[in-house]
Amino acid sequence: MEISALQKARAAYQPKLPQALKGPVVAVEGAPTQSVGNQEEIKAMFPNTYGMPVITFKAGEAKPLQPFNVGIILSGGQAPGGHNVISGLYDGVKSLNPNSKLYGFLMGPGGLVDHKYVEFTDEFIDSYRNTGGFDIIGSGRTKLEEVSQFESGIQILRKLDIKALVIIGGDDSNTNACVLAEYYAAKNYGVQVIGCPKTIDGDLKNEQIETSFGFDTACKTYSELIGNIQRDCNSARKYWHFIKLMGRSASHIALECALQTQPNACLISEEVEQKAMSLDDVVTYIAQIVADRAADGNNFGTILIPEGLIEFIPAIKKLIAELNDVLASPEAQNLGRSEQIDYVKSHIAQDNLAVFNSLPTSVARQLALDRDPHGNVQVSLIETEKLLSTMVAAKLDRWKKEGKYVGKFAAQHHFFGYEGRCAAPSNYDADYCYSLGYNASRLIANGKTGYMSVIKNTTKPAAEWIAGGVPITMMMNLERRNGKMKPVIRKALVELDGAPFKFFASARAGWAKNTSYIYPGPIQYWGPTEVCDQCTKTLALEQAK
Amino acid sequence: MEISALQKARAAYQPKLPQALKGPVVAVEGAPTQSVGNQEEIKAMFPNTYGMPVITFKAGEAKPLQPFNVGIILSGGQAPGGHNVISGLYDGVKSLNPNSKLYGFLMGPGGLVDHKYVEFTDEFIDSYRNTGGFDIIGSGRTKLEEVSQFESGIQILRKLDIKALVIIGGDDSNTNACVLAEYYAAKNYGVQVIGCPKTIDGDLKNEQIETSFGFDTACKTYSELIGNIQRDCNSARKYWHFIKLMGRSASHIALECALQTQPNACLISEEVEQKAMSLDDVVTYIAQIVADRAADGNNFGTILIPEGLIEFIPAIKKLIAELNDVLASPEAQNLGRSEQIDYVKSHIAQDNLAVFNSLPTSVARQLALDRDPHGNVQVSLIETEKLLSTMVAAKLDRWKKEGKYVGKFAAQHHFFGYEGRCAAPSNYDADYCYSLGYNASRLIANGKTGYMSVIKNTTKPAAEWIAGGVPITMMMNLERRNGKMKPVIRKALVELDGAPFKFFASARAGWAKNTSYIYPGPIQYWGPTEVCDQCTKTLALEQAK
Repeated sequence: MEISALQKARAAYQPKLPQALKGPVVAVEGAPTQSVGNQEEIKAMFPNTYGMPVITFKAGEAKPLQPFNVGIILSGGQAPGGHNVISGLYDGVKSLNPNSKLYGFLMGPGGLVDHKYVEFTDEFIDSYRNTGGFDIIGSGRTKLEEVSQFESGIQILRKLDIKALVIIGGDDSNTNACVLAEYYAAKNYGVQVIGCPKTIDGDLKNEQIETSFGFDTACKTYSELIGNIQRDCNSARKYWHFIKLMGRSASHIALECALQTQPNACLISEEVEQKAMSLDDVVTYIAQIVADRAADGNNFGTILIPEGLIEFIPAIKKLIAELNDVLASPEAQNLGRSEQIDYVKSHIAQDNLAVFNSLPTSVARQLALDRDPHGNVQVSLIETEKLLSTMVAAKLDRWKKEGKYVGKFAAQHHFFGYEGRCAAPSNYDADYCYSLGYNASRLIANGKTGYMSVIKNTTKPAAEWIAGGVPITMMMNLERRNGKMKPVIRKALVELDGAPFKFFASARAGWAKNTSYIYPGPIQYWGPTEVCDQCTKTLALEQAK
Repeated sequence: MEISALQKARAAYQPKLPQALKGPVVAVEGAPTQSVGNQEEIKAMFPNTYGMPVITFKAGEAKPLQPFNVGIILSGGQAPGGHNVISGLYDGVKSLNPNSKLYGFLMGPGGLVDHKYVEFTDEFIDSYRNTGGFDIIGSGRTKLEEVSQFESGIQILRKLDIKALVIIGGDDSNTNACVLAEYYAAKNYGVQVIGCPKTIDGDLKNEQIETSFGFDTACKTYSELIGNIQRDCNSARKYWHFIKLMGRSASHIALECALQTQPNACLISEEVEQKAMSLDDVVTYIAQIVADRAADGNNFGTILIPEGLIEFIPAIKKLIAELNDVLASPEAQNLGRSEQIDYVKSHIAQDNLAVFNSLPTSVARQLALDRDPHGNVQVSLIETEKLLSTMVAAKLDRWKKEGKYVGKFAAQHHFFGYEGRCAAPSNYDADYCYSLGYNASRLIANGKTGYMSVIKNTTKPAAEWIAGGVPITMMMNLERRNGKMKPVIRKALVELDGAPFKFFASARAGWAKNTSYIYPGPIQYWGPTEVCDQCTKTLALEQAK
């Protein structure tokens, strides 16, 4: 297989480890823990994995260890650094006993259920060190939730003599890892389960987890592109660029990219929801920025839009909920496409009708007509960046007639997501992921299950990083999912009283009016440490508090 | 102004120069030259600037030089490295006499006509060294073609005591630079004009010019993104990514990105035209690749599409030409929108009607209804990447029914252009551009006009680069533009018998069937030379012949 010059050179990079992990460790246990909410219920659901202490590793004495086998699974969407978690785990397992083996289950959790796997070797691992992607074993979205899956899994785990399973995933996958840990513990199956915090969305973080891996690299890749577009926009001086960024639930990516690039506007879904802004409020907010810059002769700019924005606008959320109800009726389903729109209009509430009628025709049609296999409106198909620029253009036209706006408005649209999920990891993610994987081997050797591998203090040099484990139950509470209360890891949305948002909020009026663009450029792997080894602005601001 | 850590560190980079330019130079003149075509006509049009020799600079004796002032203009679309041409010219001019001055005309050639300019200082120049963008003085698309513009220009040039003007631009801007040089020479105005070869499209190259600047950085930036998408695509294994790349006239960008990333397919407009492929031929070509991969269980892949593709399909070109005629009639212009479509259908020839009817409805509507201010069909509005994926999906559906295809087809779409035009220049472009600018100062000092600054042998280390000048008339021939024969620099399209295309053509069947992706990663400025200092694959293949 032909590989690029960068891959060849980068393969030699030796990721940094926390000082404590460089030799034999001893686990220092803290006090018993509690879940972040619904303590009684969570405790009842996880009798074997609830209340365990937080663990920190310190330098310890070397002890001989029997060979042991470990399995690993990549779950859900890709994130830069997944291959380094695996290579870190591989090196960690081998360092404890060279005869230990690491197996990878193929194409996600489904590989465990269907008994599809591969054994890692030195050569195999070496060709994936410090590379992006999840292609080493593939990923998948099968959810490990059913007893039949757990029982199918134990068969192959026993056959391969696997002592512990590491699951790399987001909040849902880690919740399921804990359910599996609890099940195997309750059944005395003798298989430990360890989780690893992954997601480019950055919404798996809390008091115990500083950041999910991949967020750093993905945001730096998007910020490179946003910076390049801003430089173009500031040179040509004739376009407004509407840039949508991946992230359905939380706006961490948009916020981080805004902190890195200082665009003229960045919408934060959580703020839009909290202020109960209407779609027209959002459009007016943008149009006013465009008009103010036009008054200075600046008919150009950049606007960052989180992918999930539209679902956070309360009026749209309400409209969508009613559309789902109205269109689900058997009566509606028997109608032709154009009749469905009339049906919708005559069956939804007055306030929803007003919102529906305010949408550009193409978007209204899409909302009323295109549904997913469960019959739900497909919000994700809406090109929010085009919806907003169309509505901004219409509003500016009105303002022009009213004499409130003098300028030219032309828009370009972008959507960045796939461009960053599989980028080669930054030094930060390469080190962080390798440490998470290596650390997981120490949790396994110490007999832990139902823990997440955790590395803290990552705004400091790697030698000062703190390695350990946190019981997954500690991060859980109960939330309603598909009509049922379920134990889940609480998703971290952008906190409007958190340091990153507050910094953004204090600076954005200046960024809107002036041209304060920053051009971060491409991720660098060699060169000055202030260029190559920085964490995200989000994390730096959070840790500086 | 806040700048990024990368910009700060990168500002200190000292671009490399050809050995000959490191000290005083002497101009070595070759034999008289001829234009590439229409010699008699071009000679008659350019009596003062025709037939001049190619010049090469060698090390010479230092001679004291009086201070002299120079002006510079950025013309047309942005390309990475423009700021380094300016800083190279600045350093070159100052090295000849520290009291010389460099002026920049603002927002393109219009700045010369309207007398808008700025004087460069050390501090000003230093803040733009090795950065992307044209924002140092802005660019513009005003064409210098009229005597009134030339006369307006000479007023400000005289006022500022400017001895020479450097115009950074593509083929058209360099043609106009030569027209201006000829005019000022004929009038004995005493102002020299020098051109510089710029365009990310890579279509300004010939026997004398190895490459236009910016092509290297733009292609590397797009290839980074394509590589990231390919890694994602190979991890998730469920999407076909249709990736459109900027470049209306030539497919050099698509070809270079294909050479760097080895996608499953890459369309080359020049080949489509030469083979007289129909839109259905193009769709069938892609669908067959999708079907063949599906047969191996690979329901994913990447397809590169040059922006201008659709205009190179002879049948579409013909349809567009007739649409422009038919819709120009006064009768058609008085019709409503939906009536216009019926009018079109009843007024175009049978073969064009068949092509029109084969298009997806939305594209047909767009072709028939959306026209530019001159009344022409707006081909550039067509989202070729979506057009093709829609038609491929329809064809695969038919094949599925016929039992010729078993698989799943889901598409994602991307368009990359603005992401690369203003990227910070690669080492290659940083060095090449700085040398082009520095070299221009030597052409000026040697009294040359109507020359393009040229640096050759750039596949070798910079010390071996050859600096000199080429008479712009040498690259000209006559071509029909807006109904008139005009002297123009011949545009370099992809040569189907050239080494880059031939290599691609020999490898593409393997890339189509197998997954041979290369992941180039982001441009690196520090680190091993094989990572940081490579030229494009196109240039390497061309020079290796």
